[in-house]
Amino acid sequence: MVKFGVIGYGYWGPNVVRNLDQLEGSQVVAVCDKSPASRKRVQKTYPHIKVMADCAELAASTEIDAVAVVTPVWTHYELAKSALENGKHVFVEKPFTSNAAQAEELINLAARKNLQIMVDHTFLFTGAVKKIVQLLDEGALGKLYYYDSTRVNLGLFQHDVNVVWDLAPHDLSIIDHVIKESPEAVVATGQTHLNGCEDVAFITIYFPNKIIAHINVNWLSPVKVRTTLIGGEKKMLVWNDLEADEKIKIYDKGVHISSRQGLYNLLVNYRSGDMWSPQVEQIEALRKELEYFVECITGNKAPHNDGAAGLRVVKLLEAASESLSQRGALVYL
Amino acid sequence: MVKFGVIGYGYWGPNVVRNLDQLEGSQVVAVCDKSPASRKRVQKTYPHIKVMADCAELAASTEIDAVAVVTPVWTHYELAKSALENGKHVFVEKPFTSNAAQAEELINLAARKNLQIMVDHTFLFTGAVKKIVQLLDEGALGKLYYYDSTRVNLGLFQHDVNVVWDLAPHDLSIIDHVIKESPEAVVATGQTHLNGCEDVAFITIYFPNKIIAHINVNWLSPVKVRTTLIGGEKKMLVWNDLEADEKIKIYDKGVHISSRQGLYNLLVNYRSGDMWSPQVEQIEALRKELEYFVECITGNKAPHNDGAAGLRVVKLLEAASESLSQRGALVYL
Amino acid sequence: MVKFGVIGYGYWGPNVVRNLDQLEGSQVVAVCDKSPASRKRVQKTYPHIKVMADCAELAASTEIDAVAVVTPVWTHYELAKSALENGKHVFVEKPFTSNAAQAEELINLAARKNLQIMVDHTFLFTGAVKKIVQLLDEGALGKLYYYDSTRVNLGLFQHDVNVVWDLAPHDLSIIDHVIKESPEAVVATGQTHLNGCEDVAFITIYFPNKIIAHINVNWLSPVKVRTTLIGGEKKMLVWNDLEADEKIKIYDKGVHISSRQGLYNLLVNYRSGDMWSPQVEQIEALRKELEYFVECITGNKAPHNDGAAGLRVVKLLEAASESLSQRGALVYL
Amino acid sequence: MVKFGVIGYGYWGPNVVRNLDQLEGSQVVAVCDKSPASRKRVQKTYPHIKVMADCAELAASTEIDAVAVVTPVWTHYELAKSALENGKHVFVEKPFTSNAAQAEELINLAARKNLQIMVDHTFLFTGAVKKIVQLLDEGALGKLYYYDSTRVNLGLFQHDVNVVWDLAPHDLSIIDHVIKESPEAVVATGQTHLNGCEDVAFITIYFPNKIIAHINVNWLSPVKVRTTLIGGEKKMLVWNDLEADEKIKIYDKGVHISSRQGLYNLLVNYRSGDMWSPQVEQIEALRKELEYFVECITGNKAPHNDGAAGLRVVKLLEAASESLSQRGALVYL
Repeated sequence: MVKFGVIGYGYWGPNVVRNLDQLEGSQVVAVCDKSPASRKRVQKTYPHIKVMADCAELAASTEIDAVAVVTPVWTHYELAKSALENGKHVFVEKPFTSNAAQAEELINLAARKNLQIMVDHTFLFTGAVKKIVQLLDEGALGKLYYYDSTRVNLGLFQHDVNVVWDLAPHDLSIIDHVIKESPEAVVATGQTHLNGCEDVAFITIYFPNKIIAHINVNWLSPVKVRTTLIGGEKKMLVWNDLEADEKIKIYDKGVHISSRQGLYNLLVNYRSGDMWSPQVEQIEALRKELEYFVECITGNKAPHNDGAAGLRVVKLLEAASESLSQRGALVYL
Repeated sequence: MVKFGVIGYGYWGPNVVRNLDQLEGSQVVAVCDKSPASRKRVQKTYPHIKVMADCAELAASTEIDAVAVVTPVWTHYELAKSALENGKHVFVEKPFTSNAAQAEELINLAARKNLQIMVDHTFLFTGAVKKIVQLLDEGALGKLYYYDSTRVNLGLFQHDVNVVWDLAPHDLSIIDHVIKESPEAVVATGQTHLNGCEDVAFITIYFPNKIIAHINVNWLSPVKVRTTLIGGEKKMLVWNDLEADEKIKIYDKGVHISSRQGLYNLLVNYRSGDMWSPQVEQIEALRKELEYFVECITGNKAPHNDGAAGLRVVKLLEAASESLSQRGALVYL
Repeated sequence: MVKFGVIGYGYWGPNVVRNLDQLEGSQVVAVCDKSPASRKRVQKTYPHIKVMADCAELAASTEIDAVAVVTPVWTHYELAKSALENGKHVFVEKPFTSNAAQAEELINLAARKNLQIMVDHTFLFTGAVKKIVQLLDEGALGKLYYYDSTRVNLGLFQHDVNVVWDLAPHDLSIIDHVIKESPEAVVATGQTHLNGCEDVAFITIYFPNKIIAHINVNWLSPVKVRTTLIGGEKKMLVWNDLEADEKIKIYDKGVHISSRQGLYNLLVNYRSGDMWSPQVEQIEALRKELEYFVECITGNKAPHNDGAAGLRVVKLLEAASESLSQRGALVYL
Repeated sequence: MVKFGVIGYGYWGPNVVRNLDQLEGSQVVAVCDKSPASRKRVQKTYPHIKVMADCAELAASTEIDAVAVVTPVWTHYELAKSALENGKHVFVEKPFTSNAAQAEELINLAARKNLQIMVDHTFLFTGAVKKIVQLLDEGALGKLYYYDSTRVNLGLFQHDVNVVWDLAPHDLSIIDHVIKESPEAVVATGQTHLNGCEDVAFITIYFPNKIIAHINVNWLSPVKVRTTLIGGEKKMLVWNDLEADEKIKIYDKGVHISSRQGLYNLLVNYRSGDMWSPQVEQIEALRKELEYFVECITGNKAPHNDGAAGLRVVKLLEAASESLSQRGALVYL
C-alpha cells in the first residue's frame, strides 16, 4: 500500500485524490492546500484524510511514501525538491518544471535517493493515444511524415504562463512519446493580445528524416478544436478527441511517386481506399496512470513518463518560448 | 461587348471560357492551347470559337480586346506581357507572377498603355468572403486579433511550385483584402517529403497592431479541410467553406480583461452568447469576378484585385518561400 | 427543510440523492434499496444517511416529509401509494405508473391528503427544452406544424418494458408540455427482434389543427441520435441534444403559399434566411427540478409536472402500446 | 447503336439527354417538350438533335428504337403506352405509373411486343447502394432486422403528388431491391399543412421474419437529411448520402441474448467494436443505369429495375396513400 500526500486541491487535485483513494494499491493520507475553502471541501468528501496548510509538514510526514504535486508550474521545483529530500517519490503535474535546470536537478536528486518521479503526461494513458502508439509501433502508417495538432478554445487564461506552456505540453508529451527521433530545432510564432502573455501561438518542430510536427494553440478561439493529423507513407490518421465514439480514423490514402524522368514527368499516384475507425479503450486515463505509478514505486522501476520525459518536454517549451520572443527565430535543441 | 482571347484550356480554363461566353458584356473570340486534345474539346463545345496553338497569334489578333491567361504560373509573365504590348487588357490566373519584379514590370506596362490587369483572386467574389468583408468593415468583430486558416487535402501535386504557391494564394488574397494593415514580416516552416517541393507548410504573417495571420497548407492530408478562424475583440467567426449551408458562424464570444491590479489580480471575463449564421449569397464567384472585369474595362477603372493586389500576394509568397528555405527565418517585407 | 427518503439506488438514484443532499432546502434522511451492495455504496459516500432494505419502514418513518421513488416502473404504484398513505409527498421516476388507472388513483389519493406528486420529467428542466418552450410561447415559430424526434441508440435493454416505455416518455413529456392541444389519436408500429419486447418503434400522434408528432425509438441503432425537428409556419427549429455547444438552431426558413388559382397555379415561395443558435443555460436539469419540487412542497402548490402530467404521458404510452400490438391500429385518446 | 427519343426536358430530362448522347451505344435522335423555352435550350446545347412539341410524332418516328419518358407521373401511362404500341422500348421516370392497373397493362403490353421497360430507380446504380447490396448479399450484416430512412428537406413541392409519391420512391425502390421478402402490410401517417397534399409522412412496412422498414419523408424540414440506418444481427450500417467521402459506415456492434432463464435473467450482451467505412465507387448513377438499359435492349434481357420492379413500388405507394388517408390504417398487400 503506497501512502500518498497530495499538494494542491484546486482544479485537477480532486481527480488525483479521488483516484489515489480508490485504487487498490494506494491511499491518500493527507492533502495540503493553502486555501481554507479547498481544505474544507476535502474534509467534507473525505473525512478520513488529514488536511493541512503547510506543505513542509506534509513533505516531512513519516506516514507518507509519495507526494503528488498538483499546483501551478512555478511551484513544482520547490515542492518536488522538498518531497525528494524527505525521501518521497513524486508525481508532478505537467509541465514538469519552469526550466530545464530545475528538471535536471530533480532528476539527479531522485536518482541519488533511488526515488521515482512521474510527470503527469495524462494523455499518454488515454485509449486514443495508446491506440496511436500501437499503430505507429506496428508500422501501420509506414514512414512518418508529419504530426499536426490543433488545440484551441476560449480560455482558460493562466496568469503566470502563456498559451504554449498551458496547452502545448499535451501535444509535446505525445510527440515525445510517438516520434522516435530527437527534435532538432523549434520555430514558434504567436501574438499577445490581452494580458502580457501570448494567447495565440504556432509551433513547428523539425526532426531528422524529414519528420515535422506543428502545434496550433489558441486561447481566443470561439470553438473548441482538438484535432490531430498524422501523415505517413502508407496510411494517414485523424484523431478528433472531441468525437464521442470515433476518435481515431485511419485512412488508406497515400501518395506514391512511381517514377521520375525529368521535372515534368513525375508520376504521382494517389491511393484512396477504405477508412477504418478502431474501437478505443474507454477508461479514465488518470486512473491508469496512477495505477502505473503505484506499480513503478512498488516494483522500483522508472515509468516511461519519468523526469527525463518531463525534461524533454520542458526543453521544447523553453525553445518555443525563446523562439516566440524573437518572432520565430530558429532555436536548436 | 468586350472580346476575349483565352490562353489555356486545362483545369480552370473551361470555367473562364464558359462564363465569358455567357456574360452579356463579353464574348470569347479565340482559345489558345498547345494540347490538340484541349483544342478539340473547345471545338466540340463551342463551334463558334476559334482555336489556335500559337499564343503569339492570339495576342496579336486585332479581333480581341482582352486576354485571359489561365496557364501555369511560370508562363504568366511572358504571356501577360505580350498581351499588354499588343494593347490588350489581361486577366491573369493567381498567383500573378513568379516573382515581384515581373509583377512590377507588368503593372508599369499596363499603366503606360492605360490597360487593366485583373488577377484571378476568385475567393474575393464568393458569398462567404463578401460576407466576411462586410462584417469586418462594419466593425462587427471589433478590433481584429488573428486570422487562422487551415487549407489541407490530398493533392493536387504541382510539379513546378510547392504547396505554398499552390494553396496559400487563396488565403493571402483574402488576408490582403480584409486586413487593413501592411504585413511586416513572414515566418514559414515546412517540409519536403516526396518530390523536391514542400508539401506541408505553415506560414505566419505579422501585422501592426498585434494582428497575426497563420496559414496551414498541406498536400498530404487524408481529409479535406477549409476552415478559417477569425478572432476579434467583440466577436469571433468561423468560416467552414465545406459546409453546404452554414459556411459562416459568428460567435458572440469574447474575453475582456476588466481590471489589472498586479500580476495575479487580473480579472478575466468570458462572454459566451449566441451564435448566428448569416445567409450567404449562392453565386458562381468566377462569374461575378469576370462580370466585374468587363465593367472595369468598359468603365476604364482599376479593379480592387488589380496588378497591385497581385503583386502584394506575390511578395508574401516570395517572403514565405525565402523563410521556408531557411527553416523559418523571419523575413521582413 | 424538506426531509427526503429515497427508494432505489441503482442507475438514477445516486443522482437524486446527491442533488437532494446538496440543495439548501432539502436533506436525505434515509435511502432504501434491496441490494446490499447498493446500501453499502450509500453508506460509504454518505455516512450520515440511514440505509434500509424495507421500503415499508421508510414510508412509515416519521422523520421524513417526502419520498423519491427511483425504481422500475412496475413498482411505482405500490411504493407511491404507500408513501402517500403515510402522508408523504412523492417524487416518482418516469413513466409515472404502469397504467392510467394506477395514476388516477395516486392523483386522487394525493389530492385527498393535500400532498404533492412530481413526476420526474427531467428534460423539461434542461436549458434546451426551456429555450424551446420560451420560443414556442413567444410565437417565434408561428403556427406549429410538426414535432419529429429521433431517439435511438444501442441498448439499454429493459426486461420489463419495451422501447416505447423506455425511451418515448422523454419526448412525450416534452410534447405534452409544448403542444397546447390535447392529442386526438395515436398510431404506433414496430417490431420485436430479440426478447419479447419491441426494440424498434415509430409513434405518430395526431393533434387538432393539423399538428402532428412523430417519435422514432430504437434500441438496435449502432449510433446514438437525439435529434428533434420542430416545424412552424414562420420558423423551424432543430434540437440536437448531442451537440456540446449549439444544441438548438433556429432557421429563418419557411414555405408560403401566396396564391391559389387552380391546381397548377399554386405559387409556392420558399424563404431561406439566417440561422441562429441561442445560448442555452448549462445546468443540471435534475437539480433544477428537485429545487422546484422543494419549492412546491414548501409553498403548497402543484408542480407543472404533477401527477396529471404523468397521467397524460401514461395514457399516450398505453395508446401507443395498444396500437403497436395491433400493427399500427389508430387508437383514440 | 440504340436510337432514343426523349420526352420531357425539365429538371431531370437534360441529365438523361446528356448521358444518352455521350454513351457509346446510344444516341439521342429527338427531344419532345411542350415548352418552347425547353426546346430552345435543347437546340442551343445539341444542334444535332431534333426538337418537337408533339409526343405522338416522337412515338411514331421510325428513326428511334426507344423512348425515355421524363415527365410528371400522371403522364407516364399514356406516353409509355403510346411508345410501346409503336414498338419502342421505354425508360420511365419513377414512380412508374399513377396506379398498379396502369403498370400491369404496360408490363403486359411490353411482354406481348417483346420490348423492354426500365423504371428509373437511379439510386440502385449509385456506388453507395451497390455497396449496401453487396454487403447484404454477402451476409455481412447477418439476419436483417430493420431499414430506417430519413429523407427530409425544404421543398420541392409538387402540385400533383404528395410527399410520399415525391420522396419515398427512392427508398421503396431500394427496399424492394435489398429486402428479399415480399412486404406484408403498410401503415402510413402524416399531415397536410399547406396545399392539399401531405407534406409530412411516416411510412412503416411490415415484412416476414420480423423485418421492418420505416421511411420519414418531409417537405417542411429546415435541414436536408438523407440518412438510413440498417440493422442486422451481426453488424449495423449507417448510410449518410450527404457525406462527401464516408457515405457508408459499418459498425461491428450488436446485441446478443445469450441465455434466457426466466423473465429477469435475460443475459444481454452488447458487442461494440470497430467501425469501417468502405470506399464507394464515385460514378454518375444515371450513366451506369442508361448504359445498362442499352445493354438490356441490345441483349434482349429484362433489367432488374423492369416494369415488375416499378409495379412493386407503385403498389407500396398506393398502399401508403390509402393508409395515409385513413390515418394509419393497416393496408395489406
